[in-house]
Amino acid sequence: MSDEKLSAEIITIGNEVLSGRTINTNAAFIARRLDEIGIPVEWVMTVGDRADDVREAFRAAWNRARVIVTTGGLGPTHDDITRTVFCETFGRSLRRDEAVLANLREFFTCRGRELTPRNIDQANVPERTEALMNRWGTAPGVYLAEEGRQWFMLPGVPREMEGLMVQEVIPRLLRAIGSHAIRRRDLHVVGLPESYLMDRIDGIPGLEYVASLLDPKGEVTLRISVTGESKAEADERLGRIETALRERLGRNVYGVDDETLEAVVGTLLRGKELEIAVAESCTGGLVASRLTDVPGSSDYFREAIVAYANEAKVRLLGVPRDLLVQHGAVSEEVARAMAHGARVRAEVDIALGITGIAGPTGAGPEKPVGLVWIALAHAGGTEALSFRFGTERLLNKARAAQTALDMLRRHLLRGPGEPLTMS
Amino acid sequence: MSDEKLSAEIITIGNEVLSGRTINTNAAFIARRLDEIGIPVEWVMTVGDRADDVREAFRAAWNRARVIVTTGGLGPTHDDITRTVFCETFGRSLRRDEAVLANLREFFTCRGRELTPRNIDQANVPERTEALMNRWGTAPGVYLAEEGRQWFMLPGVPREMEGLMVQEVIPRLLRAIGSHAIRRRDLHVVGLPESYLMDRIDGIPGLEYVASLLDPKGEVTLRISVTGESKAEADERLGRIETALRERLGRNVYGVDDETLEAVVGTLLRGKELEIAVAESCTGGLVASRLTDVPGSSDYFREAIVAYANEAKVRLLGVPRDLLVQHGAVSEEVARAMAHGARVRAEVDIALGITGIAGPTGAGPEKPVGLVWIALAHAGGTEALSFRFGTERLLNKARAAQTALDMLRRHLLRGPGEPLTMS
Repeated sequence: MSDEKLSAEIITIGNEVLSGRTINTNAAFIARRLDEIGIPVEWVMTVGDRADDVREAFRAAWNRARVIVTTGGLGPTHDDITRTVFCETFGRSLRRDEAVLANLREFFTCRGRELTPRNIDQANVPERTEALMNRWGTAPGVYLAEEGRQWFMLPGVPREMEGLMVQEVIPRLLRAIGSHAIRRRDLHVVGLPESYLMDRIDGIPGLEYVASLLDPKGEVTLRISVTGESKAEADERLGRIETALRERLGRNVYGVDDETLEAVVGTLLRGKELEIAVAESCTGGLVASRLTDVPGSSDYFREAIVAYANEAKVRLLGVPRDLLVQHGAVSEEVARAMAHGARVRAEVDIALGITGIAGPTGAGPEKPVGLVWIALAHAGGTEALSFRFGTERLLNKARAAQTALDMLRRHLLRGPGEPLTMS
Repeated sequence: MSDEKLSAEIITIGNEVLSGRTINTNAAFIARRLDEIGIPVEWVMTVGDRADDVREAFRAAWNRARVIVTTGGLGPTHDDITRTVFCETFGRSLRRDEAVLANLREFFTCRGRELTPRNIDQANVPERTEALMNRWGTAPGVYLAEEGRQWFMLPGVPREMEGLMVQEVIPRLLRAIGSHAIRRRDLHVVGLPESYLMDRIDGIPGLEYVASLLDPKGEVTLRISVTGESKAEADERLGRIETALRERLGRNVYGVDDETLEAVVGTLLRGKELEIAVAESCTGGLVASRLTDVPGSSDYFREAIVAYANEAKVRLLGVPRDLLVQHGAVSEEVARAMAHGARVRAEVDIALGITGIAGPTGAGPEKPVGLVWIALAHAGGTEALSFRFGTERLLNKARAAQTALDMLRRHLLRGPGEPLTMS
């Protein structure tokens, strides 16, 4: 491959994305993986199952790009037209790939299912292309290297596409591009609205490119991207910028790259040999679910009580009934009692207590939808903070869970005598 | 507008989507809204901030489609090139829109911010177009109706785009299309692999179009779409096809359109005046979190115990210690004891107990990663079923939670004496 800068196009094929029922997460996954190895995606096209549209997209991509990745249309149904349209468009026929067929037989035998003629057709790939073995499903990928272009056809099922991208596509592209030095890092930031954040990092020297990406939980990711003549030079630049960003953002940066907030919290708990329990009301189990998304979380996560009913708060957490009557279930007092009760009963080092009004109902004159109290019980006592999120139930759950995890993180990071603050 | 069938294209403009860090949820939102009024989207193109690419996308869309919606590139920075490229491509200049400017002044005054020259430039829209007032931000939308085409330019910020779609774009398109009758329905199917499902529904008469959409939880959505000369005719056709599909799929169809499995389960529980508790191990709170995603779930959901540690299973659910020793935490016996314990202690009608090996660790010679036992305790006794999911932790959590909710649903639907089966 020549030294000319590569760029890529993605073509997603299938009616499900066009209808809007499926969000095109495949394109984002592919773009990220390509971006990481310095191949920017310049076009994404999404077309349905109609041959004319697929052909037009194929021709346009062939004329514009040197790396092309398609997803979808490789399955066993008549809607799956990617291979046939590819053959028509570029004038070639299908060949039976015996290795793929053997793989298909094994896939079906293992699952005790019968191989149908439709499934056997999946072993047909265009002539003068390489079949990419799919270990996660039945449709093989297809790889073509011709006239300076690298063309990959991948299935549309995310798990299968992702497996093939990581194990087959990226290694082939890395071999092709050689060693131009590009370094990227994502810094994940919590507790700062995006506009404040962008003001705070304004004017950092050498910041060639920074993109800020906001997620529904209220987390912002800053993507730093630098280039250099050599790897050492790029590393040095990246390090300088990261240091400057961290100086300005402090503990608002919770992690980098693929780290999640729950994984960072888990690492801190494990490092300090602390065990945790959770008492949830408005988040309904979401905090526990996020904590247990982390492999090995059983090392520090003991239990969660989702005490939705008041009766459950009393029986399972020992919240005094008169607190519920006097202050209501959504109150500082009840949040504290939940955290304290969970800590004492589970005999753990730390416990969270979360109570709030997720909405749409349950609000009162002084307690609007979106009001959430979060308490943290630990060896030094119990602390509580209140938050006011928005009006949408699912967003309120997501933000309350995120904030509870962040509060726990900030507690685990603070020094002796330092107050618990969220910024 | 003539009677010719309309179709739409979406162009999303901006580097943030191309880098893959932002998923293109805008395109999905627009496609759904258009689909609902019978205008299918046939192409989606995503391009960066480069004028050449935007121009090429504009020309291609103009030549193919009669409804075009663009998002992005309308902001105040130099990357925001949508209006200028539109003017270059279609040979027109910008005009200052005084109503937009007044709106901008008010927007900034309300927020105590100063109106900069860059912001004032946002009041410039292409000649012979209508400015669409943005009540959620500063960039106005643009509407052009010309040569049988309806072209809408919307900002890229989701909240602003969504507001303009609903309040400005859809009303204008509805006026344009009149009363051509299109009906759509989504049937959500659980418990059947996609390929089996497609075989089972093969050959239903009148099934003009069906798309199957698979999600990571293992749920398949069948989208039926029919047309008719009149609304009555389309309704009748849709009804006939839905009946035929339901005959072949039975209880595997859990709901339609925007219904979720957790909402369907909730409606059944409320209808039967039953209360529920959940005892979770491997799902880590995900079942409770899904149940409490439904507004009003406090009517029937009482509590969940996330008993991750064995000690928690004993103390909180009364699982006999010797069962854990003899059979291990992932066993039929422990699943049954968890469900039974949750039901008795919470004094509810029904309880679920879920224990399994989410992975990547925890597997033994006879207990592979992905093995999950789910038990259901109810007035008639306790029943348990085992499942074998995959190797990925997060997928295993998702599928186990989905299956537990589905098991509950099938229990609530069965008649007297009918066994509990999952297909």
